[in-house]
Amino acid sequence: MVNGFDAARLGSLPERERKLIERRQALLGPSYRLFYETPVHVTRAEGVWLYGPDGEAYLDAYNNVPSVGHCHPHVTQAIARQAAELNTHTRYLGEQILDYSERLLATFPAGLDRVMYTCTGSEAVDLALRLARYYTGGTGIIITENAYHGVTTSAAEISPSLGSNMPLGQHVLTVSAPDTYRAEGRDVGVALAEDVANAIAHFRRRGITPAAFIADGIFSTDGIFADPAGFLKPVAGLLKDEGVLYIADEVQPGFGRLGSHMWGFMRHGITPDIVVMGKPMGNGMPIAAVVMTSEIQERFGQDIRYFNTFGANNVSIAAASAVLDVIETEGLMQNARATGDYMLEGMRKLQEKFPVIGDVRGAGLFLGLEFVTDPASRTADGALALKVVNALRDRRVLISASGGQGNVLKIRPPLPFTRDNADVFLGALEDVLSEID
Amino acid sequence: MVNGFDAARLGSLPERERKLIERRQALLGPSYRLFYETPVHVTRAEGVWLYGPDGEAYLDAYNNVPSVGHCHPHVTQAIARQAAELNTHTRYLGEQILDYSERLLATFPAGLDRVMYTCTGSEAVDLALRLARYYTGGTGIIITENAYHGVTTSAAEISPSLGSNMPLGQHVLTVSAPDTYRAEGRDVGVALAEDVANAIAHFRRRGITPAAFIADGIFSTDGIFADPAGFLKPVAGLLKDEGVLYIADEVQPGFGRLGSHMWGFMRHGITPDIVVMGKPMGNGMPIAAVVMTSEIQERFGQDIRYFNTFGANNVSIAAASAVLDVIETEGLMQNARATGDYMLEGMRKLQEKFPVIGDVRGAGLFLGLEFVTDPASRTADGALALKVVNALRDRRVLISASGGQGNVLKIRPPLPFTRDNADVFLGALEDVLSEID
Repeated sequence: MVNGFDAARLGSLPERERKLIERRQALLGPSYRLFYETPVHVTRAEGVWLYGPDGEAYLDAYNNVPSVGHCHPHVTQAIARQAAELNTHTRYLGEQILDYSERLLATFPAGLDRVMYTCTGSEAVDLALRLARYYTGGTGIIITENAYHGVTTSAAEISPSLGSNMPLGQHVLTVSAPDTYRAEGRDVGVALAEDVANAIAHFRRRGITPAAFIADGIFSTDGIFADPAGFLKPVAGLLKDEGVLYIADEVQPGFGRLGSHMWGFMRHGITPDIVVMGKPMGNGMPIAAVVMTSEIQERFGQDIRYFNTFGANNVSIAAASAVLDVIETEGLMQNARATGDYMLEGMRKLQEKFPVIGDVRGAGLFLGLEFVTDPASRTADGALALKVVNALRDRRVLISASGGQGNVLKIRPPLPFTRDNADVFLGALEDVLSEID
Repeated sequence: MVNGFDAARLGSLPERERKLIERRQALLGPSYRLFYETPVHVTRAEGVWLYGPDGEAYLDAYNNVPSVGHCHPHVTQAIARQAAELNTHTRYLGEQILDYSERLLATFPAGLDRVMYTCTGSEAVDLALRLARYYTGGTGIIITENAYHGVTTSAAEISPSLGSNMPLGQHVLTVSAPDTYRAEGRDVGVALAEDVANAIAHFRRRGITPAAFIADGIFSTDGIFADPAGFLKPVAGLLKDEGVLYIADEVQPGFGRLGSHMWGFMRHGITPDIVVMGKPMGNGMPIAAVVMTSEIQERFGQDIRYFNTFGANNVSIAAASAVLDVIETEGLMQNARATGDYMLEGMRKLQEKFPVIGDVRGAGLFLGLEFVTDPASRTADGALALKVVNALRDRRVLISASGGQGNVLKIRPPLPFTRDNADVFLGALEDVLSEID
């Protein structure tokens, strides 16, 4: 096996790509996995398009990092300008970080009024855990059963989606995600609160103080669960009563992607104690952040030094600031809602035609399409999803799959995705399903 | 207290800076500490100079991140060009990361032939710990007593220099740094190996498998210890015999700063199992890496997924590649050696004049100057070091202090530092010491 490719598959690839894969294996080793059976070789990107070395265009229906569009000129010019002028750290005084912080914090509900910067979502999750543990004096963390929160030791220990070889932390308990498709009449929000209450009791019975519940605001790796809006209210109320912190992981849903609000938790009408954000924050520049109440931050900050060398450096802040400009000036949140609704509608039409589509769901431009062997049993069909993902790739439409069984298409394009782009996606999906049918 | 400033000190600052500090406190909170009693406000930088809002120039004798010089045009142009063309992740195929990896790995001894990328030194240290623990099946980590390795949970647990409020990990033992100034005839290398042998025995006696010894190649936070070259040989030999991994933390000494070699461990003629690098790698772009043997990487990589979203993105790689260009074309390693030797000579002359200078040491452009109450007792004088750091800042020369007692000036300028720059530094230091005297 070379980088996950057996000899036959490797031999079937064009020589140029085969050589790149062999070099990857020799230099980077097996941790560096590629997307798709036939990997995509990219050399240029713009807007919602990625381009290969021969100019071939791929429609990007997956990447949320270049959230305002690949290589958006307003962002890349801000990066170029700032890199040439000053790029230093936060132990000197400067205005940019303060101007940006005011602007960022203004998007949050009252009470969430402090921000700390890191370079990656993993570092932000890791810091959120440090803050929660320090504030509560507890160690117990409650997560959903196929969660992904990052790759530092401490973030990986609360990321069951990394697979069974990566052990969970010893004081980590999982609860079922709010799977509306299989709710069978139960209120998923009430069920989630009950499960979390049980986990809290489990910890306490063993002398472990629970520190926090952490959840991705759209349950990206659990299978994408968005509705009904408000389902996080019971668990948020329970946590407040129990004195356990609510950490909202907004790395994936944040920055307007869900179409109705800047942050996923807002759709549910709740206010968490700590919010973590990352990926789309700098449209590809490594910047991430933790927003929290001043009470949580003061206690930690008085006692413990925290300095992140590259965190909120001038270039990252310039990029992040430009991203907010573009979200506002181009109305990208509104576009996410409009195009997202159009996509949902189109996928629901496909659902009528193809019974293997068990469910279609999501919010804004974060959508899931769940494949099942048949709609009656609702048995997950991960093999079909994988086939569809690869067939779409062969049609130069890029997406991926999610969920514990890998049977949910994860559709998460750059936010300038238009109805025309949606039509390309829907047409390709219909073609692929017709062929497989 | 506002951001570490009491009302009197805050009131003594110019209004513009006072307002910035108040905004920092309100938005970022107490974790964000500033350098110097009178903080430095910077708006522009170039080469070895930082500039304030009124054009005032500060000589940068401290920042190692902008290693090839602040805003070096070859690097900033590479960033601008790449940001406008493509900035994506490693799950697509591309040549840049492979070309850079070949170039980077060529600077390492045989056997260290695999690289994995992260965004920060903290993430790289965290990954190195994951690799070492997975490979050895152990949990015990041995560090020096005032080490700093990063800010993720797992890196902070091996960073005693963060202060006593940050508890060390439960399977972490400290050993004395190789303090040549207080060696009193002992061989610091042999002493270090003995201490590490005792730590290994301590772990094993308690059923804890030691995973790794990790050390900064110049002992930056322990007080800067460079000589005699070769003092790491006994401990490296011991670790090999004991089957415990050697992690070389090259985040601070790496990329040619020590003048004689690209990597600090090379000065000692040893080959570690894992090498961590960061800060200067992209001259301010958030990129860091872990280099290791393929044996260590294979075992981890086969079993465990690791994907760092921003790690080795195209812009970071373009910056890192440009940094290697500049180190080579401008002969910065040679300059580090020449200017460093000149600085050492100048500081030794000052030592003859000022008996409070107990020791002068270091390699290349990573130098330490240790203050003591008197040369006979060798009692550390942290208060004097702090006074000197602030007095130099008032003369617009920027450095900081290091060591367990904070009594060692940490001199670590951008690598294009010239003899003229050195003269400015030495002159200011002489003035300051004369005045304090």
